[in-house]
Amino acid sequence: MAGNSFGQIFRLTTWGESHGPAVGCTVDGCPSGLPLEPEAIQRELDRRRVGQSKVSSQRQEPDQVQILSGVFEGRTTGSPITMLVFNTDAKSGHYENIKDLYRPGHADYSWDAKYGFRDWRGGGRSSARETIGRVAGGAIARLLLAREGISIIAYTLQMGDLCAEVFDEDEIERNIMRCPDARVAALMVERVDQARRSLDSLGGIVEVRARGVPPGLGEPVFDKLQAEIGKAMFSIPAIKGVEIGEGFGVAGLRGSEHNDPFVRREDGRIGTVSNRHGGILGGISTGEEIVIRLAAKPPASIAQAQQTVDREGNAATIEVRGRHDPTVLPRLVPVAEAMLALVLADHLLRQRTARA
Amino acid sequence: MAGNSFGQIFRLTTWGESHGPAVGCTVDGCPSGLPLEPEAIQRELDRRRVGQSKVSSQRQEPDQVQILSGVFEGRTTGSPITMLVFNTDAKSGHYENIKDLYRPGHADYSWDAKYGFRDWRGGGRSSARETIGRVAGGAIARLLLAREGISIIAYTLQMGDLCAEVFDEDEIERNIMRCPDARVAALMVERVDQARRSLDSLGGIVEVRARGVPPGLGEPVFDKLQAEIGKAMFSIPAIKGVEIGEGFGVAGLRGSEHNDPFVRREDGRIGTVSNRHGGILGGISTGEEIVIRLAAKPPASIAQAQQTVDREGNAATIEVRGRHDPTVLPRLVPVAEAMLALVLADHLLRQRTARA
Amino acid sequence: MAGNSFGQIFRLTTWGESHGPAVGCTVDGCPSGLPLEPEAIQRELDRRRVGQSKVSSQRQEPDQVQILSGVFEGRTTGSPITMLVFNTDAKSGHYENIKDLYRPGHADYSWDAKYGFRDWRGGGRSSARETIGRVAGGAIARLLLAREGISIIAYTLQMGDLCAEVFDEDEIERNIMRCPDARVAALMVERVDQARRSLDSLGGIVEVRARGVPPGLGEPVFDKLQAEIGKAMFSIPAIKGVEIGEGFGVAGLRGSEHNDPFVRREDGRIGTVSNRHGGILGGISTGEEIVIRLAAKPPASIAQAQQTVDREGNAATIEVRGRHDPTVLPRLVPVAEAMLALVLADHLLRQRTARA
Amino acid sequence: MAGNSFGQIFRLTTWGESHGPAVGCTVDGCPSGLPLEPEAIQRELDRRRVGQSKVSSQRQEPDQVQILSGVFEGRTTGSPITMLVFNTDAKSGHYENIKDLYRPGHADYSWDAKYGFRDWRGGGRSSARETIGRVAGGAIARLLLAREGISIIAYTLQMGDLCAEVFDEDEIERNIMRCPDARVAALMVERVDQARRSLDSLGGIVEVRARGVPPGLGEPVFDKLQAEIGKAMFSIPAIKGVEIGEGFGVAGLRGSEHNDPFVRREDGRIGTVSNRHGGILGGISTGEEIVIRLAAKPPASIAQAQQTVDREGNAATIEVRGRHDPTVLPRLVPVAEAMLALVLADHLLRQRTARA
Repeated sequence: MAGNSFGQIFRLTTWGESHGPAVGCTVDGCPSGLPLEPEAIQRELDRRRVGQSKVSSQRQEPDQVQILSGVFEGRTTGSPITMLVFNTDAKSGHYENIKDLYRPGHADYSWDAKYGFRDWRGGGRSSARETIGRVAGGAIARLLLAREGISIIAYTLQMGDLCAEVFDEDEIERNIMRCPDARVAALMVERVDQARRSLDSLGGIVEVRARGVPPGLGEPVFDKLQAEIGKAMFSIPAIKGVEIGEGFGVAGLRGSEHNDPFVRREDGRIGTVSNRHGGILGGISTGEEIVIRLAAKPPASIAQAQQTVDREGNAATIEVRGRHDPTVLPRLVPVAEAMLALVLADHLLRQRTARA
Repeated sequence: MAGNSFGQIFRLTTWGESHGPAVGCTVDGCPSGLPLEPEAIQRELDRRRVGQSKVSSQRQEPDQVQILSGVFEGRTTGSPITMLVFNTDAKSGHYENIKDLYRPGHADYSWDAKYGFRDWRGGGRSSARETIGRVAGGAIARLLLAREGISIIAYTLQMGDLCAEVFDEDEIERNIMRCPDARVAALMVERVDQARRSLDSLGGIVEVRARGVPPGLGEPVFDKLQAEIGKAMFSIPAIKGVEIGEGFGVAGLRGSEHNDPFVRREDGRIGTVSNRHGGILGGISTGEEIVIRLAAKPPASIAQAQQTVDREGNAATIEVRGRHDPTVLPRLVPVAEAMLALVLADHLLRQRTARA
Repeated sequence: MAGNSFGQIFRLTTWGESHGPAVGCTVDGCPSGLPLEPEAIQRELDRRRVGQSKVSSQRQEPDQVQILSGVFEGRTTGSPITMLVFNTDAKSGHYENIKDLYRPGHADYSWDAKYGFRDWRGGGRSSARETIGRVAGGAIARLLLAREGISIIAYTLQMGDLCAEVFDEDEIERNIMRCPDARVAALMVERVDQARRSLDSLGGIVEVRARGVPPGLGEPVFDKLQAEIGKAMFSIPAIKGVEIGEGFGVAGLRGSEHNDPFVRREDGRIGTVSNRHGGILGGISTGEEIVIRLAAKPPASIAQAQQTVDREGNAATIEVRGRHDPTVLPRLVPVAEAMLALVLADHLLRQRTARA
Repeated sequence: MAGNSFGQIFRLTTWGESHGPAVGCTVDGCPSGLPLEPEAIQRELDRRRVGQSKVSSQRQEPDQVQILSGVFEGRTTGSPITMLVFNTDAKSGHYENIKDLYRPGHADYSWDAKYGFRDWRGGGRSSARETIGRVAGGAIARLLLAREGISIIAYTLQMGDLCAEVFDEDEIERNIMRCPDARVAALMVERVDQARRSLDSLGGIVEVRARGVPPGLGEPVFDKLQAEIGKAMFSIPAIKGVEIGEGFGVAGLRGSEHNDPFVRREDGRIGTVSNRHGGILGGISTGEEIVIRLAAKPPASIAQAQQTVDREGNAATIEVRGRHDPTVLPRLVPVAEAMLALVLADHLLRQRTARA
């Protein structure tokens, strides 16, 4: 039983391989009557695509989206929306040498163990190109959320010991690291440059926030909002840790420190004085800002010689060629936003069925 | 659309409230012919139940399980297995005073925001008693896994700055903290005692491991093994962070440090020299040990006076009475094991459909 | 992957075997705030239970329902509702002789072929007692539908060449055949008596109708309303045919005869002049009455000697003892109503997510 | 919650509108390693397409399939398989006049009632062109079934009082009615000609059979094999009745007539002497041939003047132009086969998880 769909009501299915004819997705369950212009999708795909800067892969792909169904006279019809992007700059030759070798840190071996063989060209289905479908689907989810006053933002928070100290929201899209602290961003870029020159790669942390989320979203006891977010985020390539609110910091806190007191806001609504809980209590949104952090591993594709084995288990040395990202952080930002948008859009619709 | 079921093929549904007549679960999709004795279920429930020691709640519940269906002459039949435990020591009187108040750190407010009202007796559905159904279902999953040579273990790793330094597996069930380091366990117990005396509670970290998992489990791209584990773990009450392998540590690593080289083992199988990846690559198990860590917040129920509001938003002071755990860590251990067992049993069955 | 749940949003799971400790069900996804008294459930179970008359089985079961969760102070909470009925008059001795024999027309052989063995006591899971869970869940669905002005009715339409000629709705629950034509009902009872005396059983046709269904329910292209109804009805034991509106009669009609002209009603709403379409067009309800007919086979349990084989394939003669229904028709009526109610409740909730 | 996917493990999603850029589908859950040539898909699409003969629509569409993902070096990879067909002969002008009118027997009104508006060009999503995705997905399912020795066949059985009296399997694809009786086929063609000349259309019955189905497929109690088949068939446009085995004929039978005695076959396997049950008992396949009949209504699109209303409810007269089928029967044949193949492929995979 395969797992290429996400969401129960607002449901995204992605498909396609890195070096196949195209990658794309279908959104089923998008409500009818939502104004939808292709530009809204393209804008998000442009933020995600490669070749944007020296901190990302040099593969050149325009990633031009085509909408094939589900939209009529500028509005969604309630029928499935299929979108695709043709692959144009696939250079499979780069991958011939790794056809029978298992790249360390990659899915080559586990994929073979699962399916018996794999499409090895450019990572096939396990390529980050798969996230194009997520970003396209997430763009529609964001349109739905925007109508309810919900907005989502993500940014690079940390890389090694470099951590944003200033939060200037306008700065985020101005620097190629998508870091809200211009000074730290510059240091990060320098460090990425160094890593690339030494044929290496770097990990880091991205933070994601959602504002304007109404209280009441999330479905206990298994589809709690943090559980769905956890799944969404851990499904993104390279993610090894997810935390909400105080996250791992709770291990050192006492209840009297961690509990956020409730209070009535000036607008009459109930909220909390502080937000250590990160916007979710008991698996249900509280109306406070949702705050999540993701740990992304250093990209596995590095041009250094590495020890490995071939499909028969014979020892071998491998140098991963191709055009790779020395860090995933800036391109992870739109993907993380998309995944959070998908979770929230789904739960916004699920909540419509919660009361008689 | 509610969310009280977990798993696609091996599917658990839990139901019941803390102070209702009973709590229980149904497992649908358990294969036929699995030997199943009630003792196997009861043993796990006994590890989870309250009143075991001074570090857990003093509520007295025998938690005696009854199997109502799906088992015939000691074997599963392939039909749904329903198990229940009657609630016997429910003292709703303790909760009368919080009927209209929102306890800080609890689901009271968000639950009201979602459903319009709530069963306030003992936390109702958001009580940790709900995890009885998880542990009962997980016990069956473990039987299925055991036949394939898969075992699961969890333990208290850390509480504040106290971290297990020794890993003595036999020690785990010997101390009431379920910590593999006897010396550190004693310090933890002392600290819990202090916290309780000061009417407070403590957070910490539990580690979970699975051994003997064959390579090939997990369903890209959304039902990757780490995504399903992430969801499972974040659905447990009190969890605010989940990490796999190096986890948040990857933020400070370079690719050349993080990639685990592949190697042929003496038994001819392919494995990795180190296990920084935590047993999952590309969303699929590699055959290496699966290693996960969970951050559990300090229990929200503390007997100190706290500021809050009532349902109308009027400021109020609350002291949470009842019989509460000053730390969830030792009782979290069997619940975390159960959730990992459920994920793996489900994916073991899903893998049966992966190849033609 | 097992199949003991029905519905996507309003989701029923049934469990239990004929001679196990209990049979029951869980409804997940029932909206919160729905007034629910146990009497509403019991009333429907009483209509379904055995021993009501000489045309049904003589097994004596009070079928007293207990609600174990999901209801608080007389209203649904939004949490799963579990209901059960303990089995009290199970006489497994009756079945000892068929433990190793395959009863013609029964699921004994196919069940063994699927699961490797079976709970043979009283038919185990394939017993009609399983429908208790359906009727209990359907009773809740009906409460939800009633708030929207939707009502459901079913009745015995035909048995052999005896077909109701008069439709007197009040008559239905007055006679033991649940036939809307008192005169024909009397003839049917006589025929059933004859059949029982000759150790035989009889098939027939039940008609089911839903009134007050708003236009717009149903989810093309696979979850069309008639597709969901078709699945629901074919999942009831004994059903071999389902038709909607004109049904098989369409094979002899021309488009000009079959198309129902649209018209504006006096209340301003759009409807059709005739209702050959049976209330559904393009998979979506039109607002006209939904009309379905079900063909139920003669019960397979007959006391005559029949040829069969044992588990090893050796020829044998079998006489099915036990307390059986010579016709399922009157007891099928509440089950068919329940299944239609479940489909409509689910789609009523699904429709809430159809528009932006 | 939308309904454009079918199947649990072998899962088909279709998308696209009659006059949009393309129609297509994604199959998720097809096992890896299945040999797949585009010709196998194209062959089935050619059987389904329009313009084949004078008994079907004159729209000219080559329906050339493109496979965009999930196949590598001639074999399925286990990743989702997306296939599409571009629309080339869409003449939306034909439909301008029905933009605001509700065609009798069509989904126009109910679609508007559901979604608030509709893509009216050529029927939009409710066009029979949607079945292209079903036939493409079904073609893959058939490849999977063929490896297990399962074959599927369908044919026109009846039109009005014309019913095939001879069953010559080789004849089916030789005549344009796809009727196994050459003489009756000729009479049917004549009758269709007459109907078209009188601007009318005709209903009829298609029979579908599956051979070589192993005993054990089907998932009680809700996903019984007949329930899944019932859903599949009722999801096809124009179907108003479905029956299995004796179907509605059971209403006139006694148990002693209807029960099929079990017997040991010459090959040692257990089977039944007769096949009145149609290959399914208790919701599980018995190994006997599966036999289903479908009643298809006369196509709603007829060129005669018909009474109807516009969107505001004003009375109007409508003549449905465009290029329509005077009977759906011959083109229904490959679609019905595809749907049965999808059900069986799904349950073949589900059965792999039934035993420990």
